[in-house]
Amino acid sequence: MRYALGVEYDGSGFQGWQGLGPSGPPTVQAALEAALSSVADQAITVTCAGRTDAGVHAECQVVHFDSTAQRDPRAWTLGVTGRLPPAVCVRWCVPVPLEFNARFSARARRYRYRLVNRQVRPALYRHMMAWERRRLDAEAMHRAAQALLGENDFSAFRTVHCQAPHARRDLQEVRVRRVGEVVEIEVQANAFLHHMVRNIVGSLLEVGAGVRDEGWIARLLAGRDRTLAGPTAPPQGLVFLHPLYPREWGLPEEVSL
Amino acid sequence: MRYALGVEYDGSGFQGWQGLGPSGPPTVQAALEAALSSVADQAITVTCAGRTDAGVHAECQVVHFDSTAQRDPRAWTLGVTGRLPPAVCVRWCVPVPLEFNARFSARARRYRYRLVNRQVRPALYRHMMAWERRRLDAEAMHRAAQALLGENDFSAFRTVHCQAPHARRDLQEVRVRRVGEVVEIEVQANAFLHHMVRNIVGSLLEVGAGVRDEGWIARLLAGRDRTLAGPTAPPQGLVFLHPLYPREWGLPEEVSL
Repeated sequence: MRYALGVEYDGSGFQGWQGLGPSGPPTVQAALEAALSSVADQAITVTCAGRTDAGVHAECQVVHFDSTAQRDPRAWTLGVTGRLPPAVCVRWCVPVPLEFNARFSARARRYRYRLVNRQVRPALYRHMMAWERRRLDAEAMHRAAQALLGENDFSAFRTVHCQAPHARRDLQEVRVRRVGEVVEIEVQANAFLHHMVRNIVGSLLEVGAGVRDEGWIARLLAGRDRTLAGPTAPPQGLVFLHPLYPREWGLPEEVSL
Repeated sequence: MRYALGVEYDGSGFQGWQGLGPSGPPTVQAALEAALSSVADQAITVTCAGRTDAGVHAECQVVHFDSTAQRDPRAWTLGVTGRLPPAVCVRWCVPVPLEFNARFSARARRYRYRLVNRQVRPALYRHMMAWERRRLDAEAMHRAAQALLGENDFSAFRTVHCQAPHARRDLQEVRVRRVGEVVEIEVQANAFLHHMVRNIVGSLLEVGAGVRDEGWIARLLAGRDRTLAGPTAPPQGLVFLHPLYPREWGLPEEVSL
């Protein structure tokens, strides 16, 4: 049997979804596989919709796994959560056909980036939001970001460590808005390159702070040169909201389109 | 010179604003006084608008203190924040007349309580929100809560450890609403008794879960008997949003009325 799980986590204490090796802090994937294997009483490996870096959070990561163990969705949800560290939980479990693949069946991924925009560093939300001292013009950032929409080569916003075979991605939505002292960037694409959201945010910050004009984002994109873009924004502001799958898979509303 | 400070903190790692003694985790007050004393190069003590319990957060606690040290508001803000642990920061500093008192000049205090309402415990927001498994009717909670409005004797919602000379408080606003899987309770009063917000929330949860009818809150209030009310809701869901002062004191907009 194949199952899909919705997984929520606070990425603060992890070296990311996947790790670089057995040393250092744990990975979310290892914690989840250990809890699943304990409930299943057999070794379980998972495939995720989108890997996240150290310090990056997820409201609803989606994974699939196979198991011959007979457990109902309630056991996979509550039983596994009971064996996970407090920073991780399983939101839901749905049996899926063997053709479903958490990574390849996903049609889109949605991320949110938030930062506190003021003179003083954040305290209460320091694990959930980044910090920008320079006064940001969120409306200018929003207008500039619209140049990224559509299917484009995102080489300018890709880390040198990115292993994807090509850099073409379809950016379906990008929205920047201010809510009090918080600036929030929400972005959806069919898929993302490594560091793509954080590199886009880092460049939008230059526009928001008035260091670059609004047309700079379009020129960066066209130039495909990573060395010209802004710095990579820090991880703690980033949340993987959820992937999106065709409704036919029968997954919960929050991940269906 | 007397100064007012706006102070933000994550209460997770503290034994509260004030402590029970020198043992155990630090107090927010001690951390703040140490940082202020370091910047002033003289011993500083602070008076706050409202003491918070262990695990309770503040978006904008307000304190006042006196110092003969000549420092501008920027030094009291950024300099003190630089000496505070990451979970605490100073949002702003304003010089005030000697007649200003952070506690006694406040006309109102505003708190927010948030909980995740679902089968599975929260992971990403576990330090910021409580958890309720039972499906809550937020509209019923809102209607029931309106019985608390006005000047009333809140003995039913007061902990036995409360040291206030009397239990009359003026509840100016209470609002319950659902935002997705989160239920949010916002409440404002001239002042609060010890545990008053968490005890009101604990009782509203009984109404929301359908264990008690909507009229129960009014009857509890009238009965003035703490032993009949619901359990005290856990601290991590509670945020002291801010006190409110008459505009004449010249404090920032967020704490002025």
